[in-house]
Amino acid sequence: MTEARYDVIAIGNAIVDVMAPCDDELIEELGLNHGGMTLVDAERAQELYDAMGPAREISGGSAANTLAGLAALGAQCAFIGQVADDQLGEVFAHDIRAAGIDFDTPARPGHPPTARCLIFVTPDAQRTMNTFLGASQFLPPARLNPEAVAAAKVLYLEGYLWDPEEPRAAMRRAIEAAREAGRQIAFTLSEVFVIDRHGDDFRALIEDGLIDILFANHHELFALTGTDDIEAGIAALHGKVPTLVVTRSAEGAIGISGGTRAEVAAEPIEEVVDTTGAGDLFAAGFLYGHVNGEPLERCLRMGAICAAEIISHYGARSEADLRELVAQRLG
Amino acid sequence: MTEARYDVIAIGNAIVDVMAPCDDELIEELGLNHGGMTLVDAERAQELYDAMGPAREISGGSAANTLAGLAALGAQCAFIGQVADDQLGEVFAHDIRAAGIDFDTPARPGHPPTARCLIFVTPDAQRTMNTFLGASQFLPPARLNPEAVAAAKVLYLEGYLWDPEEPRAAMRRAIEAAREAGRQIAFTLSEVFVIDRHGDDFRALIEDGLIDILFANHHELFALTGTDDIEAGIAALHGKVPTLVVTRSAEGAIGISGGTRAEVAAEPIEEVVDTTGAGDLFAAGFLYGHVNGEPLERCLRMGAICAAEIISHYGARSEADLRELVAQRLG
Repeated sequence: MTEARYDVIAIGNAIVDVMAPCDDELIEELGLNHGGMTLVDAERAQELYDAMGPAREISGGSAANTLAGLAALGAQCAFIGQVADDQLGEVFAHDIRAAGIDFDTPARPGHPPTARCLIFVTPDAQRTMNTFLGASQFLPPARLNPEAVAAAKVLYLEGYLWDPEEPRAAMRRAIEAAREAGRQIAFTLSEVFVIDRHGDDFRALIEDGLIDILFANHHELFALTGTDDIEAGIAALHGKVPTLVVTRSAEGAIGISGGTRAEVAAEPIEEVVDTTGAGDLFAAGFLYGHVNGEPLERCLRMGAICAAEIISHYGARSEADLRELVAQRLG
Repeated sequence: MTEARYDVIAIGNAIVDVMAPCDDELIEELGLNHGGMTLVDAERAQELYDAMGPAREISGGSAANTLAGLAALGAQCAFIGQVADDQLGEVFAHDIRAAGIDFDTPARPGHPPTARCLIFVTPDAQRTMNTFLGASQFLPPARLNPEAVAAAKVLYLEGYLWDPEEPRAAMRRAIEAAREAGRQIAFTLSEVFVIDRHGDDFRALIEDGLIDILFANHHELFALTGTDDIEAGIAALHGKVPTLVVTRSAEGAIGISGGTRAEVAAEPIEEVVDTTGAGDLFAAGFLYGHVNGEPLERCLRMGAICAAEIISHYGARSEADLRELVAQRLG
């Protein structure tokens, strides 16, 4: 195996988040799925945008957020994802490159426009996401550079992107390329609705030994394993996933890797402002520890510290110096 | 005089701010005018954007920021400004309408794109602005609705927009419409470079009694009056401007209206994060007090409270409930 050029390469939705605070009444009035992620078409996106208060735009996308965190921690990263040839596409591309991440998927001309996620943040700091996938779902397998995938220690995939056909094919190809090169594959389940639609695919990937590191929150673990208890869910995946990370929001996280099990509490913070990106940044911290050979508990702690930073402000891209923060907290 | 439909109608640049923190070295390296506002062409804007770190987009524009503050305080407002028919234009229009402000200037098709301001925020919280005016400078006088101007208690104009020809003509027409309707005209000088270029125009407007309320920071006061001392600057405008407001950053502000003079200190805050919009929001608080017949000192205090809120976070649109904040602080 040649030396890795990247720590992590990811394939994900290339999305700009459009975020605004809102009250609980508006969530009700608009019939939104509080705390969840819902796919919306252009018409519904317009309707929701019209109802939204003054907003701010911050680059997002689950795997892209994870890479931004990894890059901030000091990892070498590359991103593969589809933007359109428009202003929001320029914003996304600028922000990911400005974070020091290689990104060379060419913008897609014409319609649809770059993906955006309309995020309503309620007073409980919960984010309710409504995603218009736009260009993001038209990432063709041909855009994939197998050499780049083979040159990364870890291939990171987001479950969200398993839903549309073209990116799914691209991800299957990336999995092959990573396996051929003897690299690790990390997968985040993203959302229960994705498991409802593609659980069989995910279970097959796991049975085939194609997932080395699996990230799930407890709801996703239940959906994937058909259980309603964390220990039963963990037991169901025993021996099938070399490293399993289960996040439990304010309850902390559990990691199982080989024969080791570790648990960490959530990192205390002064005020939870916006939970957007909590899972993404947990994955960033964990993977940073992992590619640097840190012990399991330390990987989880890094995840918890990064997640705590991201929920202390609006947006899923870090505002603090994550590297310094982790160094301070972990000593 | 018929009853006013609006408290304030403003004509201003329709700009989306693109903001990122940066260190002092980058300001030096890029040859930026630390703390100032510089107009840039498309090529220079691209060069600066390429050098900028991960950013966030928040609607801006000086007079538009002032209206957003006024609307948050409870005022009825309307905005006139030119966006292009593009995604950033949609962002600007959405945000100003979502703030409850009437905005019906049609988007301009084709090139140039919507204005953006690349704002580098240094660790001293100072903002260094680089504005690509784009569509904003092509606001034609024909877009002006004189009935709307005549229906507002105050017409508010930003000096920045005096620079390009078409909006200048639109503003002259608006001044006429306001005067004919017996309305007040408020003007903010915006920046020393505008005074360097158009000081004669501004002095003529003042001599002709066409400015009822003038906002200036101390640098602008010096540039306008050819003085280098605040008292001398104030004396030079004595009897010519019914209400003069001089802001002095951390030193507070001075108001002179008719025979009354008042001074307020800057409102104390925990941490200054980003000074973008401080003057704009001072004007918002002051004008809100003014249109509601508050005494001069209270108007200044309202300005200071709004300015303090805006500099405590990124972006020139308020995050806190300004109405509640002012009520709390003023009792």
